Amino acid sequence: MDGEAFRRHAHALIDWIIDYREGGVDALPVLSQVEPGDIRAQLPTDPPAHGEPFDEMLRDVDRILLPGITHWQSPDFFAFFPANTSYPAILGELLSAGLGVQGMLWATSPACTELETHVLDWLVGMLGLPEAFRSSGTGGGTIQDSASSAALCAILAARERATGFASNERGLECRLVAYASTQAHSSVTKAIGIAGIGRENLRLIDVDSTFAMRPDLLEERIRADRAAGLVPFFVSATVGTTSSNAIDPISEIGAICMREELWLHVDAAMAGTAALCPEYRFLHDGLDRADSYCFNPHKWMFTNFDCDCFWVADRAALIRTLSILPEYLKNQATESGAVIDYRDWQVPLGRRFRALKLWFVIRHYGVEGLQHHVRRHIELAQRFRGWIEADERFELAAPTPLNLVCFRHCGGDDVNRQLLDRLNRSGDLYLTHTVLDGKHTLRLCVGQTRTDEIHVENAWRRIREEAEALGG
Amino acid sequence: MDGEAFRRHAHALIDWIIDYREGGVDALPVLSQVEPGDIRAQLPTDPPAHGEPFDEMLRDVDRILLPGITHWQSPDFFAFFPANTSYPAILGELLSAGLGVQGMLWATSPACTELETHVLDWLVGMLGLPEAFRSSGTGGGTIQDSASSAALCAILAARERATGFASNERGLECRLVAYASTQAHSSVTKAIGIAGIGRENLRLIDVDSTFAMRPDLLEERIRADRAAGLVPFFVSATVGTTSSNAIDPISEIGAICMREELWLHVDAAMAGTAALCPEYRFLHDGLDRADSYCFNPHKWMFTNFDCDCFWVADRAALIRTLSILPEYLKNQATESGAVIDYRDWQVPLGRRFRALKLWFVIRHYGVEGLQHHVRRHIELAQRFRGWIEADERFELAAPTPLNLVCFRHCGGDDVNRQLLDRLNRSGDLYLTHTVLDGKHTLRLCVGQTRTDEIHVENAWRRIREEAEALGG
Repeated sequence: MDGEAFRRHAHALIDWIIDYREGGVDALPVLSQVEPGDIRAQLPTDPPAHGEPFDEMLRDVDRILLPGITHWQSPDFFAFFPANTSYPAILGELLSAGLGVQGMLWATSPACTELETHVLDWLVGMLGLPEAFRSSGTGGGTIQDSASSAALCAILAARERATGFASNERGLECRLVAYASTQAHSSVTKAIGIAGIGRENLRLIDVDSTFAMRPDLLEERIRADRAAGLVPFFVSATVGTTSSNAIDPISEIGAICMREELWLHVDAAMAGTAALCPEYRFLHDGLDRADSYCFNPHKWMFTNFDCDCFWVADRAALIRTLSILPEYLKNQATESGAVIDYRDWQVPLGRRFRALKLWFVIRHYGVEGLQHHVRRHIELAQRFRGWIEADERFELAAPTPLNLVCFRHCGGDDVNRQLLDRLNRSGDLYLTHTVLDGKHTLRLCVGQTRTDEIHVENAWRRIREEAEALGG
Repeated sequence: MDGEAFRRHAHALIDWIIDYREGGVDALPVLSQVEPGDIRAQLPTDPPAHGEPFDEMLRDVDRILLPGITHWQSPDFFAFFPANTSYPAILGELLSAGLGVQGMLWATSPACTELETHVLDWLVGMLGLPEAFRSSGTGGGTIQDSASSAALCAILAARERATGFASNERGLECRLVAYASTQAHSSVTKAIGIAGIGRENLRLIDVDSTFAMRPDLLEERIRADRAAGLVPFFVSATVGTTSSNAIDPISEIGAICMREELWLHVDAAMAGTAALCPEYRFLHDGLDRADSYCFNPHKWMFTNFDCDCFWVADRAALIRTLSILPEYLKNQATESGAVIDYRDWQVPLGRRFRALKLWFVIRHYGVEGLQHHVRRHIELAQRFRGWIEADERFELAAPTPLNLVCFRHCGGDDVNRQLLDRLNRSGDLYLTHTVLDGKHTLRLCVGQTRTDEIHVENAWRRIREEAEALGG
């Protein structure tokens, strides 16, 4: 494929993407309705011996793949978290692909590293994060693929700090204990297992009526673990839990962590974006006591996955944990100590130029533009909350601090299960569920790039229709 | 940015990428010549309050970022590994960005999962991998971001299998020992540390004169470790080491692993691609004894980073190690057991639609097209090897089985260091180094998409010129 052919195919693909995003997606079932194996059954058993024209591949995208897509970019997508994307972010991904650089070392593309450092410093100001997270201080930020990987890196640095940086070298020689709430994301449990600490050494602390961690129980449990000869080392607190957007009391948890010398990691994967608006900065109260923090622009800040922003207050601990320098990676810039090599801030060695999309998004929207959209999403969710509150057949299942509404039909678990199933099978919208207070709960999360009043109204109409069809 | 504006900006960016890749890059210094901080100094301290036009961003890419790019896609790039990309791969990245789907579960986009499974099954045939790696058997393949992450997943599954799947839950309770050659990639050491096993419990086995692991020493060491009460559990063998493309004897190592019941992981990150050609299939001799294997299409198969293909012979062990199922991820498809949820095959939860680019590359080139380019790269490297052999001022530093030539000037370490530095500072080409037999060694790796005879000839001319300028 030469430049001319690429131009032609790229233009066709750009048209395809515009048609899809500007309305084509609205006509498709949000949740893919295919059965397991349906897609593979249409693909040839063997790869082609000879090259095929791109037009044919694009036709197969329409014909074979599209029915197997669950449309995250549909304005009727209210499931999980938005994963909203935008045209400037797509342009960032395109440029990153066109440049094809590897950012593992500063030297392998200084701009890749420096733009990332710079944009993450910007975000410290934009979100009102502690100054210690800036690269000009003791800390700094980097882009991870996901909050799961950020949690793993935080746990590893904490593990090393707690064991005098010996367990990386010698293996774990004491029983470390970590803490999170019962509502914390499963990635914390997964990472604790990966790090060799053992999932049963993660204490899941009970929550209050708002599903936020109870600091009194945390403190109690730490005391009991110490008394039992164990070594408490790490707390993961959540700003906006996956189930219900609950906000752990960072200030109080942070005070305990400082007193007890535990590493405090704060996971604000989706909700962190709200702190772009001064009126939601309270989410980050107490964050100056955190050792690490992450939020995901790929969840609610119009930036394509993967883009998790991860900061540490003490970069030395992180780097010492993840650094390794074989001969073939040695270079003058690294040896000068004057540069950041981001390979030492993450699990993998290689890395794409992910800062480009974030840079494009921030510059395209501007801070005020981003604030505007975040406020609009929250306003729409709050409107939906009002409808739930005003309808006696439904109830709220949790506080609604931001853009996620947890609710249920009053008819019990079975009704809610059927309701969800009927809605999702209709293809008109996509919701997911959780369990709160032991009860099946529906989640409606507002944040897709094109979601507007009409889509939230339609969702509410469809929910009532299906509830009525179920006799509720 | 509406659809029309996106079309206009995307067209401008496509033009930019074509200009860059079709020749613009040839005029730029391959290794960026900026000093630390040069890029950041040109970026505004604060993010913009209001949105900015995309044209301005694209101007800043040219003006500010481009001097800070080390041009991996230059035909004069001979450093590290090629990381070669291609137009079809870029189109795959673009489509993936445009769709913006999350493939964490089958249900969150069945096509994302099924295309990945399908293409990885294709590759089993294309590379002559063991049938057990096919999804129709006990195994299966998935795309990881990098060989580092693949090694980590292999180590974790091996750790669990060796401890009756207890260490994930309880933490490590015995001293596990792993093995790799002294030439193995640093990611193995890093992953052993991450997994809580302790880097000092990775034995680096000495190599023979071809820099391949010595199975006799491996066996000896396993025996000694067992005698000392330790628990050998894992061997990482390499097909094409980073330093010199050395090929560990997989068959013999595999026989030891089967006898000793150790998990054998085989890392063929770059060299695996050569097995597309039947005459290089010998690289995979003995692979039927491996528990896991990976190679990186993002290194030498025209596919944009990130794309590491990772297979296991027993998917149950991997899934049991990495699986975790919170309420909010439960769904009927997962519970039916009839689908693959790739979140259970990797460290992070979220994942992009990475199979698209691989599918586009395979279909665009066809198997024979890929073979053609691989053979051409190897031929060019072998030609360069011939020039080194014929020039008494230089010597080969290692065998040259494929596309990587390790060589040095006979004038000693200082001359080689200066030679490398002068070449890279000239911007005319980019080489990296390693140390073999204790001596500073230059590496010339052929594999860039646009690298042809003329570029390798120029490299050789420039190497001789700079050597002569140094008095050699």
